[in-house]
Amino acid sequence: MAKKAPLPNNFKVVLEKGDKIYQPGISVDCAIFGFHENILKVLLLKVTQSNKLALPGGFIYKEETIDQAAYRVLHERTGVDNIFLQQFNAFGEPYRSDASIHQNRYLEYGIKIPKDNWLLQRFITIGYYALIDFTEVKIDHSIPNEGAEWIDINKLTNLMMDHESIILKALESLRTQLAYLPIGRNLLPKKFTMPELQKLYETILGQKLDRRNFQRKMISFGILNKLTETRKGGAHKAPFLYTFNDKKYQKALKEGLYGSW
Amino acid sequence: MAKKAPLPNNFKVVLEKGDKIYQPGISVDCAIFGFHENILKVLLLKVTQSNKLALPGGFIYKEETIDQAAYRVLHERTGVDNIFLQQFNAFGEPYRSDASIHQNRYLEYGIKIPKDNWLLQRFITIGYYALIDFTEVKIDHSIPNEGAEWIDINKLTNLMMDHESIILKALESLRTQLAYLPIGRNLLPKKFTMPELQKLYETILGQKLDRRNFQRKMISFGILNKLTETRKGGAHKAPFLYTFNDKKYQKALKEGLYGSW
Repeated sequence: MAKKAPLPNNFKVVLEKGDKIYQPGISVDCAIFGFHENILKVLLLKVTQSNKLALPGGFIYKEETIDQAAYRVLHERTGVDNIFLQQFNAFGEPYRSDASIHQNRYLEYGIKIPKDNWLLQRFITIGYYALIDFTEVKIDHSIPNEGAEWIDINKLTNLMMDHESIILKALESLRTQLAYLPIGRNLLPKKFTMPELQKLYETILGQKLDRRNFQRKMISFGILNKLTETRKGGAHKAPFLYTFNDKKYQKALKEGLYGSW
Repeated sequence: MAKKAPLPNNFKVVLEKGDKIYQPGISVDCAIFGFHENILKVLLLKVTQSNKLALPGGFIYKEETIDQAAYRVLHERTGVDNIFLQQFNAFGEPYRSDASIHQNRYLEYGIKIPKDNWLLQRFITIGYYALIDFTEVKIDHSIPNEGAEWIDINKLTNLMMDHESIILKALESLRTQLAYLPIGRNLLPKKFTMPELQKLYETILGQKLDRRNFQRKMISFGILNKLTETRKGGAHKAPFLYTFNDKKYQKALKEGLYGSW
């Protein structure tokens, strides 16, 4: 038998007075991308009663900023903390909300939500994204009712509502960002090879890149130090190791990869 | 005597049932930047009763998308049409809303808005921006109660609520965009000189740029055609004229100024 989806402890209050506690009709959703060893994943929750996958999301308290809500909701639902969330887009198709999600969840406990209840109205959601090394993030698996999991972004299926298109839009924002900001300092080992750096870009962009063009472009940004060491052990000619030049990396984060005007 | 701020024709309905017609607690605001002859302006409304300036903004109907609301609101409040609006950020400081704006407006007609009315609650607003040639935009001055005006962005003063910070954030987004996308095709005459192009960038960036660096950078993008004609008439050596190379400009709009990966 399928597990019942637990209701929040304060479910009666949420149902009856939620629109006095939270901003009605608005939510936040977090698309947390995790990269590790050439795989790009996204952090999703298993929605107990529907077997669907959902982004960690939730409501905004009357007294908190949208940013605060995003950090809080992510922490409450996954245990994840200490990552930088970036707001990227608001999603508001008139029929994106699915009232049946709430209806079914409460029905399992014999509660019929009145049609005009705030939970069943249209919600606009504000999207946040982040890119991190998923091995360095601690998911709290003891949180009841959730089951957060890293899902390969090439294997997205059975997502709730419009969450797949939210993920795709977040990915688009991330890819645009690659065009003018550096990336990788927290995603690669301290010393890395050019093929490893290229693989990071290829994984995020979802496409193969030309080796020579990539190398020329990366070197022209002036954010890399080439070491005299090489990575030994492979069958091929041992590739040189690089580190990021911290000072120039920081500068490029502020002024862009192509320098200021 | 100060003019009374007219109420909408349907003011009773808005007051009593607005939260059934519109999304409660959420609005859109449009920061329309206009460039012409080295001046950057922003389109603002004069708020009749407070003498403050405000971005054209408004509510979202239950049945429309956020984008549709932005276009409709801009049109209804200024007459402006046919420009491309870009969503850039949601603003949601808990105390950004100012209930007294609505209270005072209705009080002039002897109507006291109940404290728990939807109009007096916290609003989150979703910001849109655009950059156009302000001489090519038709403002409808017959719209009652508004008085849309182009205000120099260096002379912003007395703005409503957090509208000045919304404008500054929009400007920041626009400046970031300059780092990887071309600009100017609809803002400069068909044939223009390098100093004219540079002035466009300087005006948007709000800073002087080095002439040689700028020229080198612009030419490296490969989106300009240098003509054999020069601009005659000045005291200085006549500068060469340029046009945008339409095909390459379009390509750069899609792939970025520095080319695809």
